[in-house]
Amino acid sequence: MLRSEFIKRSLAGVTALVLAPNLLLEATERKSVSKSKKHTSHSGKMTLSWYKYDLSLAHTFTVASYSRTTTPTVQVCLSYDGLVGYGEASMPPYLGHTQDSVCAFLSKVDLSGFSDPTEIDEVLTYVDSLSEGDAPAKAAIDIALHDLVGKITGTPLYRMLGLSAGKAPATSFTIGIDAPDVVREKTREALGKYRILKVKVGRDTDREMIQAIRSVTDLPLVVDANQGWRNREQALDMLHWLHEQGVLMAEQPMPIDRLDDIAWLTERSPMPIFADESVQRLRDIKRIKGVFSGINIKLMKCTGIREAWRMINYARAEGMRVMIGCMTETSCAVTAAAHLSPAVDFADLDGNLLITNDLYRGVTLNDGKLVLPIGPGLGLTKL
Amino acid sequence: MLRSEFIKRSLAGVTALVLAPNLLLEATERKSVSKSKKHTSHSGKMTLSWYKYDLSLAHTFTVASYSRTTTPTVQVCLSYDGLVGYGEASMPPYLGHTQDSVCAFLSKVDLSGFSDPTEIDEVLTYVDSLSEGDAPAKAAIDIALHDLVGKITGTPLYRMLGLSAGKAPATSFTIGIDAPDVVREKTREALGKYRILKVKVGRDTDREMIQAIRSVTDLPLVVDANQGWRNREQALDMLHWLHEQGVLMAEQPMPIDRLDDIAWLTERSPMPIFADESVQRLRDIKRIKGVFSGINIKLMKCTGIREAWRMINYARAEGMRVMIGCMTETSCAVTAAAHLSPAVDFADLDGNLLITNDLYRGVTLNDGKLVLPIGPGLGLTKL
Repeated sequence: MLRSEFIKRSLAGVTALVLAPNLLLEATERKSVSKSKKHTSHSGKMTLSWYKYDLSLAHTFTVASYSRTTTPTVQVCLSYDGLVGYGEASMPPYLGHTQDSVCAFLSKVDLSGFSDPTEIDEVLTYVDSLSEGDAPAKAAIDIALHDLVGKITGTPLYRMLGLSAGKAPATSFTIGIDAPDVVREKTREALGKYRILKVKVGRDTDREMIQAIRSVTDLPLVVDANQGWRNREQALDMLHWLHEQGVLMAEQPMPIDRLDDIAWLTERSPMPIFADESVQRLRDIKRIKGVFSGINIKLMKCTGIREAWRMINYARAEGMRVMIGCMTETSCAVTAAAHLSPAVDFADLDGNLLITNDLYRGVTLNDGKLVLPIGPGLGLTKL
Repeated sequence: MLRSEFIKRSLAGVTALVLAPNLLLEATERKSVSKSKKHTSHSGKMTLSWYKYDLSLAHTFTVASYSRTTTPTVQVCLSYDGLVGYGEASMPPYLGHTQDSVCAFLSKVDLSGFSDPTEIDEVLTYVDSLSEGDAPAKAAIDIALHDLVGKITGTPLYRMLGLSAGKAPATSFTIGIDAPDVVREKTREALGKYRILKVKVGRDTDREMIQAIRSVTDLPLVVDANQGWRNREQALDMLHWLHEQGVLMAEQPMPIDRLDDIAWLTERSPMPIFADESVQRLRDIKRIKGVFSGINIKLMKCTGIREAWRMINYARAEGMRVMIGCMTETSCAVTAAAHLSPAVDFADLDGNLLITNDLYRGVTLNDGKLVLPIGPGLGLTKL
């Protein structure tokens, strides 16, 4: 129901309870949350609380440099005036953040200077000023604040950004590095559910991986080398071979300190080359202009929705392509990213599909296409 | 009143009529508007209508290249579901747009493909695709759409952008080129009302102008040469002299085709140099990086709020300063620009103060500082 209709019905004296279940749920949740949380900082009218939460992975996850079975997160609630905004910090181990470092940052945040959560820019400028790094912790607050403001104004996040829910793209689904039999099995499981597959490459087994997938399906593929290729000539040969195999684009082919080699590769590549580890925040894009064809934006790298939106618009202005990705995280952070997806070329938002203990229902899939929830803010329902 | 409180009151069965006067007013206006308008294109659920309207200037307005006593505009209404969004195209004669060219563009716009006005990005991408130029006509639709969406979601425009109304800066007030007696008189009139004055320079009388003002007040000044200086050495001498006179910054010192000279000047200038005529849209900023210290964004140059917001964020990412200006226009377009003002370094939003037949009450001044209206969308009241 549109807000205008809601208002009109209210004015007409008709009790409009359509939004009520959500709101009542929030109020109930807030009470139980504030009882069970260990850490709560009361600061003015906005109250920030958080707890550590480990995600269980359905399958052991392997990329070029490591394997893992769990991912640590910190879940955040931002309460105000009977409403609760949800946020999340997800910390894949290779980025150097821990649950303790995130909680330490959150403890430093004092929101008592802000009486109006809708002053998003002011609040997040303050939060960002508290340290040089801590992107996941900052993202958790950013996400919770956007959720909260959406609930205050009754507006879904995609609408706050002026985007069309119907333009949300299909997401890719990631097939990790594994033995050919396992890869074939995972690919079979993915059939019918996804329109595009993402393959982790960057090891000696790259051709085997792709061939195992191609023995099962001819779905379009994208690849992510996670800095795994070391020789630019071999990388270029591989890109040409991958192109023949129906691969549409490649992420982070070589290490972040090899910008000259990557620029050489991009110039000759038969497909666009996206930066992932080479770009964290807005300020990093300038350095990689002309080196990569596009950027992979992740909320946990860039401090959240506000910065991601700026990055999308900056990259577009520079003629670069844009994809949005995620970490292994709950439907909270994945849904936040999904609300930005109508503005990007590729979406890689399957992080919530890889865990067995999600906390929310949010973005869903229809024939592989992202379907944004229509509730205010992120539109999450607690599970 | 915050939306959340509004909802709570509605849910509690209390009749919340705080927003009602606005909404009822809109509904009434819409009826009278659709009767009196000559041009109406019904297109799906959104209805665009418009009329020509000439602004009467309180004083003859003189800049480096011309004088005038009226400014033509086209006023736009975008109706949807009982709500009306207001927009405006203002056409200072030197930009080559006319009321007829604006109306011709508006006639081409077919919004029947859009059922949801909140899909701002889709709608405006379509509108922008209809022609290469026509920035004022596009701005009129952009402004009306933002006003409409703000009314649909019950959100003031500054809040849609995540900005803080309290951070709106003081606006400068412009003193046109005139005889010293007249300049002194206008300056006296401005005292007590404004905290910063903008002086039109770029003629042989620049020093006289400044001295006439300085004989009345020591308020901070900014200057706009409107491309009027032709010799870079003389321009630099003038900038040093102006700096000694308490001038904070200078706009468009030399013609747009003299970028090398302007870069030379900016490098040596004791104050920041802003681009005005040299920058229209987002795509123009790249060309003038390193040439100017900052940009003057005007909705009528850049096609509206969406593009202006992108320009602000792009310029910030490039380390450039930002000011927001306006044409001579009603409180409709000036208020739209004012909602962006919390994000800029200088605001020059006095266009509505120079006319005697304004159509709206919107942004106001308190001791020279911009005060944003708190109603949904632009927050305008029809006069």
